[in-house]
Amino acid sequence: MDCDLCLKAPWIIPVEPRGQVLYDHAVLIRDGRIAALLPQAAAPAAAHTIDLPGHVLLPGLVNAHTHAAMTLFRGLADDLPLAQWLNEHIWPAEGRHVNGDFARDGSALAALEMIRGGTTCFADMYFFADETARVATSAGLRAAIGLVVIDVPTAWARDPEEYLSRGIALCDRWRHDPLITPMLAPHAPYSVSDDTLTQIRVRADELDIALHMHIHETAGEITQSLHSHGVRPLARLDRLGLVHANLMAVHMTQLTTDEIALCAERGVSVVHCPESNLKIAAGICPVTALTRAGVNVALGTDGAASNNDLDMFGEMRTAALIAKGTSGDATAVPAAVALEMATLNGARALGLCDDIGSLVVGKSADLIAVDLGAPSTQPVYDPLSQLIYAASRDQVTHVWVAGRPLLRDRQVLTLDETAIIGRAAAWRDKIRASDHGGLS
Amino acid sequence: MDCDLCLKAPWIIPVEPRGQVLYDHAVLIRDGRIAALLPQAAAPAAAHTIDLPGHVLLPGLVNAHTHAAMTLFRGLADDLPLAQWLNEHIWPAEGRHVNGDFARDGSALAALEMIRGGTTCFADMYFFADETARVATSAGLRAAIGLVVIDVPTAWARDPEEYLSRGIALCDRWRHDPLITPMLAPHAPYSVSDDTLTQIRVRADELDIALHMHIHETAGEITQSLHSHGVRPLARLDRLGLVHANLMAVHMTQLTTDEIALCAERGVSVVHCPESNLKIAAGICPVTALTRAGVNVALGTDGAASNNDLDMFGEMRTAALIAKGTSGDATAVPAAVALEMATLNGARALGLCDDIGSLVVGKSADLIAVDLGAPSTQPVYDPLSQLIYAASRDQVTHVWVAGRPLLRDRQVLTLDETAIIGRAAAWRDKIRASDHGGLS
Repeated sequence: MDCDLCLKAPWIIPVEPRGQVLYDHAVLIRDGRIAALLPQAAAPAAAHTIDLPGHVLLPGLVNAHTHAAMTLFRGLADDLPLAQWLNEHIWPAEGRHVNGDFARDGSALAALEMIRGGTTCFADMYFFADETARVATSAGLRAAIGLVVIDVPTAWARDPEEYLSRGIALCDRWRHDPLITPMLAPHAPYSVSDDTLTQIRVRADELDIALHMHIHETAGEITQSLHSHGVRPLARLDRLGLVHANLMAVHMTQLTTDEIALCAERGVSVVHCPESNLKIAAGICPVTALTRAGVNVALGTDGAASNNDLDMFGEMRTAALIAKGTSGDATAVPAAVALEMATLNGARALGLCDDIGSLVVGKSADLIAVDLGAPSTQPVYDPLSQLIYAASRDQVTHVWVAGRPLLRDRQVLTLDETAIIGRAAAWRDKIRASDHGGLS
Repeated sequence: MDCDLCLKAPWIIPVEPRGQVLYDHAVLIRDGRIAALLPQAAAPAAAHTIDLPGHVLLPGLVNAHTHAAMTLFRGLADDLPLAQWLNEHIWPAEGRHVNGDFARDGSALAALEMIRGGTTCFADMYFFADETARVATSAGLRAAIGLVVIDVPTAWARDPEEYLSRGIALCDRWRHDPLITPMLAPHAPYSVSDDTLTQIRVRADELDIALHMHIHETAGEITQSLHSHGVRPLARLDRLGLVHANLMAVHMTQLTTDEIALCAERGVSVVHCPESNLKIAAGICPVTALTRAGVNVALGTDGAASNNDLDMFGEMRTAALIAKGTSGDATAVPAAVALEMATLNGARALGLCDDIGSLVVGKSADLIAVDLGAPSTQPVYDPLSQLIYAASRDQVTHVWVAGRPLLRDRQVLTLDETAIIGRAAAWRDKIRASDHGGLS
């Protein structure tokens, strides 16, 4: 068997089948795809071999919900009630500063952070998505770019019609790129009208693309919908024909038993953003009940303004801990399930699970190496447990997407780190000067 | 002013006063103590100056509850109900393996992890505490060694009398060491009899040392006490005269309003261990109510068998997030309060706040430097927010205790990392071979 690359590690976690650990195996890569997983002793010669003693190899992490460019607002305002945070800080700052350059520079900072932290694919939702797609492809990352539609005018578009037309133009430009998956991203039930949602449904069907939407993030959203529409948001979306297998519903902290059953029946994917939900005090997504009902649950960080990082290791740990702590059941969301949420389930939510999300022969070679040699992950009884309950993203040493190396020995190969951080500091100076609640 | 060491950084967070950030200041250190905090421009010459561009300087973190040696059980068994975890894994493994060598090697691994993660002082509770004290002093760490008393025989002592006599001998040996604070550590209300608790009270009063005890960790503990003693555990301890300002009560997830008022009135310190409590599904300590009542709340990681790390950065973030998420109030436990819990409040709980816990002239020079230059903590609007919501312990670059450097440019100066990790791996092989539920 001719191979381009052979990766050898004491532990490989393929994610499929759940909980499996392969000891002293090798991953063989050919033409950017996984050609074989074999015991090291049986591995044939490859053009290039990388030995990773003390490391675990696993699929690249899939961040199923973020707003990459918002890294430029990281820490601008914290510890505030949601309304004050949005009305006095985030929305004014977005109104003043968001443009194509902002999206480019913020997405580049996010790409740096994601590559360093083992994320190989992210589902984004933000304005000027062209810039985010360009940054992702040049960084070598896979991205599902969410084409925002919202009833509020911004520098990106004046009205829903313009959002939709610009989004569709973007979709046409990017849909054949091997790293990019366009999705339509109606912002949230409370910020998009029935008419617009109907148009979105029609266009998504025509284009055969999926939907990425914030739904049931807070209790206030439910109350408001009952007041304005007479039904809960999910029921309204269902009436408009949007609750189906191509819907990726983000947050979902407020769910009745019937709504969970509806999601299961229709094949909706739910994206759990535990740290954002906790930090904003929005509520907690009922992951155990969703999983038990058969709903696909993926994980996301949300944007860095509300998290404040794009750390999927932190998100996996928090998802596991919060599920146990809130249910009173220490067996809820075990390590293998947390990892599955951050890999295969994310791939399923994005419609990409034939290609990524697990280390299976024929899938794309999107994978990461994590060094468990640090004192904080020693000794190793179970590498899966170490990954979820002890490791940090700083232990990620290597990242590949479609066989292309993006990180090698903790060095990002595809982006200019110094220049990106310099541009972020310049944005901070500009944004801080205009933030009335900002620190000096 | 003659100084041994001058540390310059763009941001210094002294913790007192709460929330203060000093910009472009220097910390001057003389004879192991903080001699001054000044604007860099006004700093006099020092024998040695360290410039820390892009770093924030803050007090060393105080881990107010751990079982250091249990790092050797890290990841041995996870995702199990509490009873099964203890009865089938942890207690049998302790029965077979715990001895002086275990305590020494496990404490050394913990010391490595703590120094790397910015912890400069830890409150321990474990058998063979002599070994832990020896490791701490040679590593240069400050430690409050908890001298365990429990009704169950172990390799350390046969019965409560022997636990107490060995503990008191240890106390005599260590109480004058500048880095060591002995405490008596009755394990928990359910594992120590009334007679023994009375003896402990008498001896603690005679020796004028404080108490370190697990209290109200789970709902089951309350039920059992009501059944066996007719009162809740805290009421029983109060009847026995143990609820006072020298009591450090760990976990406290089950508390009535009256119990919170009692803790406030008596000056009890509570140690919140959020990640352990979540992981074991024990419950959640009502931090906001305790703080509002005026109770001093510190933070601890618990042992690595139930966390699975000794990461105070993770604990600060989880404490902030869980307080917001469970109260529905996004302003609960803001960043400055989370940091205070992990520094000054820990120092208070250990009776050491005249000496450590904040960067105040005259206090010991126990401090750490954290590099905020990583993409994940850029840009910096507010270094305090970055520390709690975005930074990870891997960004700690320098650690000093009493002015002595323990970590320099991420290199541990006082311990042999390779040897310690090698011994941990040997323990794993031995322990795994005898763990019936263990992974192969």
